Amino acid sequence: MLENVDLSKSISKEECDKIADDLSIRIGELQRKAWKMGIPIIIVFEGWHASGMADIINRFILTLNPMGFELYTTGKPCYQEEQKPLLWRFWTKIPVKGRIAIFDRSWYRRIILEHTSKGKAGKDMPKCLEGLIYFERQLTDEGYLLIKFFLHVSKEEQEIRYREMKKKEIPLMILEEEEEKEYLNDYDKYLPLIENILEKTDRASAPWTIVEANDENFATVKVMAKVIESIESKIEENESQIKAKADNHNEECLIPNIDSSILQKIDPDKNLDYQEYKTEKKKCQKKMARLQYELYKYRIPLIIVFEGWDASGKGGGIRRLVQKLNPRLYQVIPVGVPSQTELSHHYLWRFYNEIPEAGHIAIYDRSWYGRVLVERVENLCNTQEWKRAYREINEFEEILSNYGTIIIKFWVHIDKEEQLQRFEAREKTPHKQWKITSEDWRNREKWDLYLDAADEMLQKTSTSWAPWTIVESNDKYYSRIKIFHTVIDRIENELKERGINIP
Amino acid sequence: MLENVDLSKSISKEECDKIADDLSIRIGELQRKAWKMGIPIIIVFEGWHASGMADIINRFILTLNPMGFELYTTGKPCYQEEQKPLLWRFWTKIPVKGRIAIFDRSWYRRIILEHTSKGKAGKDMPKCLEGLIYFERQLTDEGYLLIKFFLHVSKEEQEIRYREMKKKEIPLMILEEEEEKEYLNDYDKYLPLIENILEKTDRASAPWTIVEANDENFATVKVMAKVIESIESKIEENESQIKAKADNHNEECLIPNIDSSILQKIDPDKNLDYQEYKTEKKKCQKKMARLQYELYKYRIPLIIVFEGWDASGKGGGIRRLVQKLNPRLYQVIPVGVPSQTELSHHYLWRFYNEIPEAGHIAIYDRSWYGRVLVERVENLCNTQEWKRAYREINEFEEILSNYGTIIIKFWVHIDKEEQLQRFEAREKTPHKQWKITSEDWRNREKWDLYLDAADEMLQKTSTSWAPWTIVESNDKYYSRIKIFHTVIDRIENELKERGINIP
Repeated sequence: MLENVDLSKSISKEECDKIADDLSIRIGELQRKAWKMGIPIIIVFEGWHASGMADIINRFILTLNPMGFELYTTGKPCYQEEQKPLLWRFWTKIPVKGRIAIFDRSWYRRIILEHTSKGKAGKDMPKCLEGLIYFERQLTDEGYLLIKFFLHVSKEEQEIRYREMKKKEIPLMILEEEEEKEYLNDYDKYLPLIENILEKTDRASAPWTIVEANDENFATVKVMAKVIESIESKIEENESQIKAKADNHNEECLIPNIDSSILQKIDPDKNLDYQEYKTEKKKCQKKMARLQYELYKYRIPLIIVFEGWDASGKGGGIRRLVQKLNPRLYQVIPVGVPSQTELSHHYLWRFYNEIPEAGHIAIYDRSWYGRVLVERVENLCNTQEWKRAYREINEFEEILSNYGTIIIKFWVHIDKEEQLQRFEAREKTPHKQWKITSEDWRNREKWDLYLDAADEMLQKTSTSWAPWTIVESNDKYYSRIKIFHTVIDRIENELKERGINIP
Repeated sequence: MLENVDLSKSISKEECDKIADDLSIRIGELQRKAWKMGIPIIIVFEGWHASGMADIINRFILTLNPMGFELYTTGKPCYQEEQKPLLWRFWTKIPVKGRIAIFDRSWYRRIILEHTSKGKAGKDMPKCLEGLIYFERQLTDEGYLLIKFFLHVSKEEQEIRYREMKKKEIPLMILEEEEEKEYLNDYDKYLPLIENILEKTDRASAPWTIVEANDENFATVKVMAKVIESIESKIEENESQIKAKADNHNEECLIPNIDSSILQKIDPDKNLDYQEYKTEKKKCQKKMARLQYELYKYRIPLIIVFEGWDASGKGGGIRRLVQKLNPRLYQVIPVGVPSQTELSHHYLWRFYNEIPEAGHIAIYDRSWYGRVLVERVENLCNTQEWKRAYREINEFEEILSNYGTIIIKFWVHIDKEEQLQRFEAREKTPHKQWKITSEDWRNREKWDLYLDAADEMLQKTSTSWAPWTIVESNDKYYSRIKIFHTVIDRIENELKERGINIP
């Protein structure tokens, strides 16, 4: 993509100023229109060192209303960022609907740097690129507009600029890092690498625009014009979608996608003697405390997801699991109704925000599976959205797993009669009454719909990297010990697979 | 406070479990009640190393509903945290109304570590403690309940525990840092230092509770009992305040606090020739670009606040100021109506969230002064609240200034006739119409109230560390150049005072 670019394109400063003044009025209008329509926009700037990026970005953001955008400069990751997958710091920064996020260098720069300087030498590059493509597709699928610029200058021009900067005593690197030095000084080495990355990530829904930046005036105008074109066509697309929807009132017909139910075949009645439970619990808690330190020592993050029926004992299971753990290294994350801010982002955003640091344990009391359970059953998202979610969730977990995260998922299962007894018991116990609300009773009425949803979920999101475990839970003691054993076995196996001896 | 503590207090494990079970039901009730009443609660745990803090905290949080609290473990500050004043990381974590934030080590531990290990040796300890006291008082003034525990063990007990941990291969330090090692090993050195800090920060509104922790069971029960007692008395206090308000409907009489107006004496009509403006602007922009790199080089943060009448030219002034700056090192922060989340915190919270990193420039288009301007005039807070704000703001700026931040504040001043002309001009220009709303016209009607508020603000918050500059702005050219000169002069003076030569 970079080879046949004509870098001699240029315009005069006067011409640039004149055009830019006109374009900036149009950009202002489009920013307000996109805001009203709730279109979130992400603009990525990548490019060579000394390609004039800072000046071009500054020129561009001065055309925007500062109320409506955020500029993120991507420098060296901080400690917290180093303890999480690469994409975490970008996921957490995606804009809410109607706003613009501008990335001055982005996930691309990091992937380039990490693959050359840290000696990985492109080893897991294909997997990394796959992760980026997942990320971008998930955003554009959700309606994000993604505009990607690569500011291209020739090697000769770059060298001239370095000389000028040195003469003028302008610092060559700001907010950048040691590993960046190589990128600064070895144009030829990086050219094929960048070429490769640009080609692999140039997709219809998120294409690259190569900006001829030997002449900064030309580059400035091209960036502005491309932003206008992209927002205009996105607005048009959205308007025609709205029109299409209005024209076609027929609801998509919902055909159940599964032939057989997994849950129907489960006998939730397995049980365990109390004395046996007590002895086993004590043993398991001790082991868990031990394993927690091993996970921390080897900086392995662990995610445990609890899904299941209301009153199935998720909370009780979690309490026993963490009772002897060090609270500095685990966190219980209860997932409730999303806030207004959360609703204004991609639904995975809130979960990206809370993934555990390397070496820590995050336990989710309900989770991102809400998308294909409650949101599906209660029509909080449309059919297309929850159907898309199976793939999105698998990709999300795959990215975490590629980073080294152990993912354990429980469906805590009771039958309908058992739930009724537990609801009634809660209503009778004064200090437990707050736990049972009319919503619980309403959910109960939709038991069969939830059963279908859970079944489809269990089938479509049980992957080799993140399998589901169904826990028979009519008997609490049996349930809790099964949870313990599953977690302990999985951790021990993972440690073994990674060549770690457990003392 | 630590000297005469009877560390021999103890209870049996069985007794502890029995009491804890009862207390935990009460804690659950109080958590729900505090949530309903919107009381934000902060619980601080400090103590000796190996005082059993992790276990006690874990035991305590298991009594809470996980939906309603956050646990923060205070370890080594990350890069971003190191680039900001000590309190930043804690301010950003204060809970919203009704929630509980628990700090497993806090601002106290940091102050202890930084004053012994980094060789500061208590030099600026009084100033630091003053900052902490400001912080805690601002929170309790705003209705936060602050509960502070120090877990006290004897030196002998500590040594016994170290030996046990080593035998059991439990890691001695988790999430802690090199500098912590000293604290781990030198009880006697730290005893007087801690004694001193506890005494100086033991205040009626935020008292310390010393917990005898040689016996962990006793300590657990004492922590739970104290939390109950504190929340109960806070609830009682709030209920009686509500009652008192209901009994006394008389509004507090609002007596203007100022005899003389500063703004009435300002002549906003100073002007500057266009050609002169253009030449000077170019010169100043070049100088600013140069100074920006100096600030970055010496890691000096700069805050520039713009307040002033609607349509007084704040935005235009800011645009010229940043036009030639590097966007990686500056940020324009427009301050609008607070979000629901922001309203649920102390009003300074949102501003603490956005203070600039060391070496960066943050420019505020409106600011924390909204508290004593729009919030005062529009009755968005009560009289007591905005009156208290003068001191709070001065303290806030003092803390930033003590950290090394340069603070420059502009009141951009036009007269009422000039505003009218500008409003009308905006209404006539198609691409500027969106800038003028009915709210602007409504604000204009309250000109005199805003004048009083601005006058009082200028008098009460002009400090040696953060003085106000009034900018005569009927003429835009004059205004913009005055802003440039003020900023440049101030930066140059500050650099000189800090012994830095400008090239």
